[in-house]
Amino acid sequence: MQIQYLFELLGTGFFAISGALVANKKSASDWFGVTFIGFITAIGGGSLRDVLLGCYPIVWVKDVYFVYAILGGTILASVFYTTLHKLRKTMFLFDTLGIALFTIVGTEKALSLGAGPVTAAIMGMFSAVMGGVLRDMLTNEIPIIFHKEIYATACLAGAVLYLLLFYFDVNRNLNFWLSGTVIAAIRIMAVRYNLSLPKFRKDTGEPVT
Amino acid sequence: MQIQYLFELLGTGFFAISGALVANKKSASDWFGVTFIGFITAIGGGSLRDVLLGCYPIVWVKDVYFVYAILGGTILASVFYTTLHKLRKTMFLFDTLGIALFTIVGTEKALSLGAGPVTAAIMGMFSAVMGGVLRDMLTNEIPIIFHKEIYATACLAGAVLYLLLFYFDVNRNLNFWLSGTVIAAIRIMAVRYNLSLPKFRKDTGEPVT
Amino acid sequence: MQIQYLFELLGTGFFAISGALVANKKSASDWFGVTFIGFITAIGGGSLRDVLLGCYPIVWVKDVYFVYAILGGTILASVFYTTLHKLRKTMFLFDTLGIALFTIVGTEKALSLGAGPVTAAIMGMFSAVMGGVLRDMLTNEIPIIFHKEIYATACLAGAVLYLLLFYFDVNRNLNFWLSGTVIAAIRIMAVRYNLSLPKFRKDTGEPVT
Repeated sequence: MQIQYLFELLGTGFFAISGALVANKKSASDWFGVTFIGFITAIGGGSLRDVLLGCYPIVWVKDVYFVYAILGGTILASVFYTTLHKLRKTMFLFDTLGIALFTIVGTEKALSLGAGPVTAAIMGMFSAVMGGVLRDMLTNEIPIIFHKEIYATACLAGAVLYLLLFYFDVNRNLNFWLSGTVIAAIRIMAVRYNLSLPKFRKDTGEPVT
Repeated sequence: MQIQYLFELLGTGFFAISGALVANKKSASDWFGVTFIGFITAIGGGSLRDVLLGCYPIVWVKDVYFVYAILGGTILASVFYTTLHKLRKTMFLFDTLGIALFTIVGTEKALSLGAGPVTAAIMGMFSAVMGGVLRDMLTNEIPIIFHKEIYATACLAGAVLYLLLFYFDVNRNLNFWLSGTVIAAIRIMAVRYNLSLPKFRKDTGEPVT
Repeated sequence: MQIQYLFELLGTGFFAISGALVANKKSASDWFGVTFIGFITAIGGGSLRDVLLGCYPIVWVKDVYFVYAILGGTILASVFYTTLHKLRKTMFLFDTLGIALFTIVGTEKALSLGAGPVTAAIMGMFSAVMGGVLRDMLTNEIPIIFHKEIYATACLAGAVLYLLLFYFDVNRNLNFWLSGTVIAAIRIMAVRYNLSLPKFRKDTGEPVT
């Protein structure tokens, strides 16, 4: 568990970095604004999950190291700003590992609080992607998850796999790594081969009111 | 109560349909994005009400059938997409019945949790309209309730009527139907006769900072 | 404490006035929309703080006078609309006093609920500024706190000072006035001398994906 905790802190710090890099380009310019957006990006998903589940104290109120991880991430983002913008592939990899980790952690937390499997899968996915959705709402963008190559869907698929294996009593650590890997694999495949989900419905050209 | 529960599920499914139809036009195109927006539209108001009241587990965590109703609604929206876009009057009628139902249900829930009448009326209105507000925030629109013909105000009026009759010990079922009908009637009148609330204040032409 | 409670009600009413004045210009025109935006502006920060801390019933559910203060503020905003728009300096002063008060009250509330100092400072700042952030999200604006002269940072600074003095056992009332004054002073200085925080990082001109 110690290693997983370390990963969670690293994941949080990483999401703060990625939030800060996006923030700085689009809508905030000073230290406060950028840190604020990094904070929401990193902690928004987990906070929403905890609030929806009524699990108090929520993650960063309980453990202040998550706040430190975010501050650390923002400072790194500032110091290595130019470098980080060039490291696209590394950033992409970290983001992929981050959503894989957060999905499984969120799913497990919901299960441990007595949620059913459908709710747990949704909560796992929320943990991973809602920080980004809140960031996009704050910065006045259409959330990226509505458009991008398969992203939240990879999280959902991994959460569903985790739950299946969970009910078949697969060893927890094995399940953790298997389901996490599936999320990362789907996401990487989606980007490499430019896969996207089927369109909901072709536009009919009808006006909508 | 059985029938009311069925109505609540139907109402949730219907709001998911209406969310999915709007979503698809404006800001999301694939299955995930549309379902996500349908989900928020359908469940956002009730979730916000439960979170603000501290009523855990919140409605769809407690009862997974609400999630199924939303998935069903989204699938229907996809299959009957063209038809549904043409059924404007039917859609309008369902929406009107939906907000009437959700307002009264939300008001009753707040009351049963010990909220005072003013809070209960606000919570009832929130239950009915905040899903749409969250949908509009997600899709980067100015919320429709700030502009449209009398909508949320009809919910408020119905909630106030419900509370008045409640304090005069009117039979609960009678009250439910009376207040719900008043909401629907106000809404239908407002659209038919193009009624809107008085303007807050004429624009003075002064610049605002 | 009686006087502080009165100040809190006045502060809430004032934020409703300021929310209503902004709302009316930009995105809502009828009474309902303006009152709704005034409501969110006035009560959003405190509600978010209470929900994140799991402190139920939240402030305006517990004490309906906060709702009355908001309604009173909205009515005043309508009646004295033109006058209030001209009273820029007065409005600015009230806003400054409001954020100072709300920051300290929020910090104290978080502390009393067992939050650590870092969380308490964040919650204090959230109490003061998140109502405005929610208002900006609702009205489809980039939140003003990402751009404006030092605003939320003044709140953070005051909260940190409060916590320092708190841990040095400074008398509570003295601490309250000292820390509040520091927030107001920083804010007034920032506007008078047009101070802003350092930029996060110069734009590199690199495209971001």
